[in-house]
Amino acid sequence: MTQKTSFGNFFEDFRLGQVIRHATPRTMTDGDVAIYTALFGSRFAVQSSGAFAQAIGYEAAPVDDLLVFHIVFGKTVPDISLNAVANLGYADCRFHGPVYVGTTLSAVSEVIGLKENSNRQTGVVYVRSTGSDEAGRVVLDYVRWVMVKKRDPLATVADAHVPELPTIVSPETLGASLPPIDVGKWDFDLSGAPHRFGDYGIGERIDHVDGMTVEEAEHQLATRLYQNTAKVHFNQWAEAQGRFGCRLVYGGHVISLARALSFNGLANAFHIAAINAGRHVAPLFAGKTVFAWSQVLDVATLPARDDVGALRLRTIATADRPTHDFPDKLPNGQYEDGVILDLDYWVLMPR
Amino acid sequence: MTQKTSFGNFFEDFRLGQVIRHATPRTMTDGDVAIYTALFGSRFAVQSSGAFAQAIGYEAAPVDDLLVFHIVFGKTVPDISLNAVANLGYADCRFHGPVYVGTTLSAVSEVIGLKENSNRQTGVVYVRSTGSDEAGRVVLDYVRWVMVKKRDPLATVADAHVPELPTIVSPETLGASLPPIDVGKWDFDLSGAPHRFGDYGIGERIDHVDGMTVEEAEHQLATRLYQNTAKVHFNQWAEAQGRFGCRLVYGGHVISLARALSFNGLANAFHIAAINAGRHVAPLFAGKTVFAWSQVLDVATLPARDDVGALRLRTIATADRPTHDFPDKLPNGQYEDGVILDLDYWVLMPR
Amino acid sequence: MTQKTSFGNFFEDFRLGQVIRHATPRTMTDGDVAIYTALFGSRFAVQSSGAFAQAIGYEAAPVDDLLVFHIVFGKTVPDISLNAVANLGYADCRFHGPVYVGTTLSAVSEVIGLKENSNRQTGVVYVRSTGSDEAGRVVLDYVRWVMVKKRDPLATVADAHVPELPTIVSPETLGASLPPIDVGKWDFDLSGAPHRFGDYGIGERIDHVDGMTVEEAEHQLATRLYQNTAKVHFNQWAEAQGRFGCRLVYGGHVISLARALSFNGLANAFHIAAINAGRHVAPLFAGKTVFAWSQVLDVATLPARDDVGALRLRTIATADRPTHDFPDKLPNGQYEDGVILDLDYWVLMPR
Repeated sequence: MTQKTSFGNFFEDFRLGQVIRHATPRTMTDGDVAIYTALFGSRFAVQSSGAFAQAIGYEAAPVDDLLVFHIVFGKTVPDISLNAVANLGYADCRFHGPVYVGTTLSAVSEVIGLKENSNRQTGVVYVRSTGSDEAGRVVLDYVRWVMVKKRDPLATVADAHVPELPTIVSPETLGASLPPIDVGKWDFDLSGAPHRFGDYGIGERIDHVDGMTVEEAEHQLATRLYQNTAKVHFNQWAEAQGRFGCRLVYGGHVISLARALSFNGLANAFHIAAINAGRHVAPLFAGKTVFAWSQVLDVATLPARDDVGALRLRTIATADRPTHDFPDKLPNGQYEDGVILDLDYWVLMPR
Repeated sequence: MTQKTSFGNFFEDFRLGQVIRHATPRTMTDGDVAIYTALFGSRFAVQSSGAFAQAIGYEAAPVDDLLVFHIVFGKTVPDISLNAVANLGYADCRFHGPVYVGTTLSAVSEVIGLKENSNRQTGVVYVRSTGSDEAGRVVLDYVRWVMVKKRDPLATVADAHVPELPTIVSPETLGASLPPIDVGKWDFDLSGAPHRFGDYGIGERIDHVDGMTVEEAEHQLATRLYQNTAKVHFNQWAEAQGRFGCRLVYGGHVISLARALSFNGLANAFHIAAINAGRHVAPLFAGKTVFAWSQVLDVATLPARDDVGALRLRTIATADRPTHDFPDKLPNGQYEDGVILDLDYWVLMPR
Repeated sequence: MTQKTSFGNFFEDFRLGQVIRHATPRTMTDGDVAIYTALFGSRFAVQSSGAFAQAIGYEAAPVDDLLVFHIVFGKTVPDISLNAVANLGYADCRFHGPVYVGTTLSAVSEVIGLKENSNRQTGVVYVRSTGSDEAGRVVLDYVRWVMVKKRDPLATVADAHVPELPTIVSPETLGASLPPIDVGKWDFDLSGAPHRFGDYGIGERIDHVDGMTVEEAEHQLATRLYQNTAKVHFNQWAEAQGRFGCRLVYGGHVISLARALSFNGLANAFHIAAINAGRHVAPLFAGKTVFAWSQVLDVATLPARDDVGALRLRTIATADRPTHDFPDKLPNGQYEDGVILDLDYWVLMPR
């Protein structure tokens, strides 16, 4: 009999240019959306209310951008990162259009870079992962790179290839990710704050004030909802003997918590249009409380769009450390104690 | 740059007659309903089965009355009670009609009373909150009063005004909250018990027997589902340094647990038509087990309705104390140990 | 006043041939399906993707077979097993057809056997439980037997009757449980593995590798979702004084975990068509990590079906014990340490 069980790919299994079609297409439902709300308590009006979304020009309430991201990401795990040591970074992540309930998402990854580490125990795999709907329309794509174990340290591998990656998604392309918005129909009472695109300035820092404690059941529910099979999130028996002695919270959970917390200060930043870069500075464990603050890195108008403008934000999340003093990266490149996430992304706001 | 973060209103920010339109309209979905079932295990047939509900005259299975209440309540928190010390009471709460999946709920509150406390540190704010659907039809309204901190104890405030509130919602109005019911189509096997309106007598006491233990993840999921942002429910880091050393469970969670437990003894009490009064006697913390018992305070037929009648119930919930001995209010006005909720409300039952 | 509260049936309350219509019909929704995914992380493509399911011949993505089982089972608990000491076994469980979102499930049980135990404190009740849709079409039926307390040990009971039960569901009947499948439209990349019916051999053993830790909140959410009222799952206050000192996880939770884990090795075993036998060898408690392995007991083609074939599987689940060494039943009839479930069932796979 052939081996039926998959142990995932190891570093030497990947080939430059290899295209992997990932398993388990997923039809997004109102159930997924409701669980996402129950997990993060996000309050952006466009995603919460069909009536609000339709008034401004959407077909219906779009599925939260990050839920789409997590669903697509989850599909890539069994093939790309089941034997990962660390998720190193994200780049060039673009949301190409709204996803509505009823859409079936599937994912494909292309290996765009490979570089063995000098210890020959591990290597870095770069993939561009693409999420598409049932008609094949791309709804999301992004690059991530991840350190993956070798099955056999002695295995020889191809020459290193490290892809050139943009440090930022050009704001010129962001408008394609949403329909025209009728800002006259935008109800700023219902959306939770009066601040528009023009009210934010480069360099402005916003403490999001609130904290959210994470429970084991919560991050397990979240990550299973995304059908993400990474072992470190679910198996206490194994992790008790591991590096940290306990399960690790999926890094994307931190991103979603930070996004939900950011409502307080960014209530009208209704759409994440792109992620420029992201780094999980430290792991998060259940029982910790997550806080966040954001800085406006840039502002941009969009070609042929006078309805919405883009803010480039950097959001820093911490564990068990409030953020009123804006904990940050230090001059030596290290981060202040408690920082767990440094995310650079574009959001759109009504003008 | 203007301040973007909201720290909520303090006592001196409220004005008598002030009307506040709350943020984040919410379209109710099958997902919300399913999570509510998973959180409380409620077994009332009308809310559980579209087929049962349609047979007796509803368009579809209505959303649980308390889920509607929690969603509307949640919207009021960021504006009304973010700086609350205590939620003091509810009155004159009426459910005006069934809410179905697909309805978008939003909420408005009017400040109907203000009274500074003698210590000048806090004051009591009385609001009438109204939940409406996307067409503006009122589905729920209620009065609550809450003790709110002052930002500045020295701030002068307007003269005290305490509204006159009814101690009871008149049963005459309750029939408007539901369609005509075809009791001939009511299947008493499927609904779980044979007892109709006429089988209950004034003064009758019912122990609901079962207990339900609350986990941190559960009450956090519930309260985020309602987009309720009250800090005390979510932030263990802050609460560890607070009054109780741990997070507080949302008082509405206790109401929903008591209602779900009350199925055993009140299986045909399918609709909460009004809440006359409610008091959270003591806080609930995760890890505790909730029990409940009820007493029939009154029975009432409804004008021009021979299909359903109303029971006025008082339901007492406890923590870590079974209720076979009906723990109650003592003659001195205090409650027996373990009591956490005293709720006075009208339910409708088939005649 | 009549007694309103139900304390459930005791052994002497059951009569041979008695038919019990159970309470609380339930309309299955996308919300139920999403919560099930969040609880178990199951990745079978047919249940996850409407597009995949429709391509091969289903009307839509069918509701997971085990979710249907748990919903029907849950309805039987208040009448059959509220006073159970132990759930002893299952037999002759057949899934008669796909259940789609929108179906309203209800359940009826017939008492088919009764046997008092020699201590006269308890007896074994055998029931055939049948789940039907709103049109009365049977979607599931199964036999279970359960040890139930007597209210009064001195109560006399009828003569013992133990039903004859098949040790196996005939594979000839299994094809009726699903539409014709267009295997040419089956995308083996999307389904997660290349292995078809013919790739499995009798006796083959498959370690499913991964482990999943269970939290209290998770099994409570699951069991309440099924409206299963068994006290041992929910009431820590009572269980602290009980046999184990803590809540017991619903046995069906273990079955669902094992099924979800079995995707790794059985990705194309998309449908459970029947359960031949099942035994909960030991209880599961929160905090434990569940592992599973499976053995192919038999393979069978189906009459007039060249699209799918049946594998008879035995899946063994363990707690806090990996399964690479296939822990099993010992020659003395006991099980190796850590084994908690021994399930014998038929799955269908594309040929």
